[in-house]
Amino acid sequence: MRLALATSATSGGARAMARLDELAACSAEEGALTRLYLTPEHAAAIALVKGWMEEAGMSTELDAAATLVGRYPGATPDAPVLILGSHIDTVRNAGRYDGNLGVIVAIEAVAALHQAGERLPFAIEVTAFGDEEGVRFPVTLTGSRSLAGTFQPDNLDATDKAGISLREALVQFGCDPDAVSRLGRDPARTLGYVEVHIEQGPVLEAEDLPVGIVTAINGASRFKVDLTGKAGHAGTVPMGLRLDAGAAAAEMILATELITTTSGDLVATVGACEFRPGAVNVIPGSAHFSIDIRSPDDAIRNAAVAELIARFETIAARRGVTFAIHKTYDEPAARCDPRLIETFEAAVAAVGLKPLKLSSGAGHDGLAMISLCPIAMLFLRCKGGVSHNPAEAVLTEDVGAALEVLLGFLKRLPAP
Amino acid sequence: MRLALATSATSGGARAMARLDELAACSAEEGALTRLYLTPEHAAAIALVKGWMEEAGMSTELDAAATLVGRYPGATPDAPVLILGSHIDTVRNAGRYDGNLGVIVAIEAVAALHQAGERLPFAIEVTAFGDEEGVRFPVTLTGSRSLAGTFQPDNLDATDKAGISLREALVQFGCDPDAVSRLGRDPARTLGYVEVHIEQGPVLEAEDLPVGIVTAINGASRFKVDLTGKAGHAGTVPMGLRLDAGAAAAEMILATELITTTSGDLVATVGACEFRPGAVNVIPGSAHFSIDIRSPDDAIRNAAVAELIARFETIAARRGVTFAIHKTYDEPAARCDPRLIETFEAAVAAVGLKPLKLSSGAGHDGLAMISLCPIAMLFLRCKGGVSHNPAEAVLTEDVGAALEVLLGFLKRLPAP
Repeated sequence: MRLALATSATSGGARAMARLDELAACSAEEGALTRLYLTPEHAAAIALVKGWMEEAGMSTELDAAATLVGRYPGATPDAPVLILGSHIDTVRNAGRYDGNLGVIVAIEAVAALHQAGERLPFAIEVTAFGDEEGVRFPVTLTGSRSLAGTFQPDNLDATDKAGISLREALVQFGCDPDAVSRLGRDPARTLGYVEVHIEQGPVLEAEDLPVGIVTAINGASRFKVDLTGKAGHAGTVPMGLRLDAGAAAAEMILATELITTTSGDLVATVGACEFRPGAVNVIPGSAHFSIDIRSPDDAIRNAAVAELIARFETIAARRGVTFAIHKTYDEPAARCDPRLIETFEAAVAAVGLKPLKLSSGAGHDGLAMISLCPIAMLFLRCKGGVSHNPAEAVLTEDVGAALEVLLGFLKRLPAP
Repeated sequence: MRLALATSATSGGARAMARLDELAACSAEEGALTRLYLTPEHAAAIALVKGWMEEAGMSTELDAAATLVGRYPGATPDAPVLILGSHIDTVRNAGRYDGNLGVIVAIEAVAALHQAGERLPFAIEVTAFGDEEGVRFPVTLTGSRSLAGTFQPDNLDATDKAGISLREALVQFGCDPDAVSRLGRDPARTLGYVEVHIEQGPVLEAEDLPVGIVTAINGASRFKVDLTGKAGHAGTVPMGLRLDAGAAAAEMILATELITTTSGDLVATVGACEFRPGAVNVIPGSAHFSIDIRSPDDAIRNAAVAELIARFETIAARRGVTFAIHKTYDEPAARCDPRLIETFEAAVAAVGLKPLKLSSGAGHDGLAMISLCPIAMLFLRCKGGVSHNPAEAVLTEDVGAALEVLLGFLKRLPAP
């Protein structure tokens, strides 16, 4: 479908695409995009984004967690704040739209308001977070957790592969590590957190829609499953006398896939699997696999996990093998705010699109920001649902549509 | 059950056990048994075994493939030869009975004949092969293939991990590599090849029998299966849009296990399995696993492989993934000779035992020797069916029983 976008949205979308290309050059590698937290390429990206923010009428500040914050004042000096944000760090060999697109589109929205001389009943702060991907240090959401007041000071001791601590890296970047814990915002003064992001999945493409409204960031649990059977000679142990940890793992992996049929909201993935000793002529004595299970509904996810463990127990007992299951990650779902969702629905409908609602399978800064304020997200179609990959691609006209929807959202958002 | 063995068999079994302990000290490692082909520890083992052979009335010779051959003449100078053999190389961190036991028991049998001044209508050659396990070089059965006349000269170019070729290693060991191809024996002068070996499986223990008669060395095929799906984000790709190579592999692994129910003679094993990229939060884009499938009946094995590939095709088509299957090994079954089996049956019955027949799931030098002459094997119970492991264990009285059965076999074997 082709949309009839406002001229400003069309030109804003095109400028956003050009800026995203320019931003993608801030990388640790020639010919590929890798931009980790608190690196020279992160500083280069901040310098570019800072210039665009100021051009859009914002004052800027780099906070103690290296989040670049651009501020566009509201109609009154004491107006509360709506935060529009995303992140400018990337995974290794990344695409150029994950995170970066949300920051650039937010700047375009403010630029449009600025050009029109328009003030809203709330101030807008555009935040370019520096650590959403959690690639460099074994911590994540550092910028958004700081604003939400949930940053754990002992995270400053986390070290990267070179042995540099987060504390040292912040100091080298010109930030004050001890001030990170004091960045927490006042919930009473914070209207909400709104993020535009590529979908990173194939739903919008399948629905032929440029944008969709997020209902929740799915909760996720991750597990490591360790199975113990008995290794043996592949030729000499009769089938009936085997305690094959590998075959038991295969049955559990299929059970993990099957558990998703208990609810349309569930996805479950076994991403890693290994048999040991791993020789062609040895019955596996042990097997190890991972589980990642997600749902927008924590009760559904937790019930599925309980049911899955019960099925594993049945499989293990029947086969005479044992297993241990270790939870390695657990994050509850973050439900988007109904009032903000309704406002997005109106803004999407106003550009002539079906206001499709979908959940976010991936994690985002909203997972942290929900401790501070209501959250909302607008997803943008990406080609083939591909993300975390150089092949990440979006359509310029979809970016224009997202910009027009975001502007419509801002103008429709009721005064506090 | 307790057997009433001849005193000579009881004392021969005890001496064999003591010699196996002594032999186990010839190792590359202190406190563990590792004895690879053409190593100093192989030379040390040859020196020990040579002394015991000579003590048992045999002349000895190290052939060009580093097989130690002990010869006990027959009643007439032109008597044909019966070869009694096994191997004295081991896997890494091995047990002390695999291979070595067959050599030592054969020497005890000859020692008993020698002590009684008994000559048989055939000469006996005891062969201590040096390369049955195939651990050092990517070749195997070098000694037995040489005798069978099936040694491939280009195997001399195979190299170990240090880059030393088989040719160089033979020269360093004092052997003439170019003579290996000339070791082939005359089939018309070779009565048969008979090997005593631990079972390496749990059947005799389950049947409460010290020995069993082998009907065939199972044929085996090995495969590598490579599955290709589409990698994706574990959170954002709905279940119905996935092309999960890992889940497809799990289903194929279960199908591999299930195929064995089509015949009681089949065993099938998936020893190795890996998903890639192997990250907890990424749907596997590819998966790789191995198959080892064996049967004493080649037709049954080949039919099972064909049926399995058909099932894989169904699974792959339903899931929208593709797969390639590569055969990495294929060895037909080696059927033991009916006349030699009957002779063993009589010898087993003569010591008051049930003559249980079973197939060999593991490969042995008989796989090569069958190109030269009829073969037979006598299996000896081992604790828990454990082999290729320091926990390998046999009972002294079982070794005595095997010795008495072997002697009975030799005396019953019809004159050629």
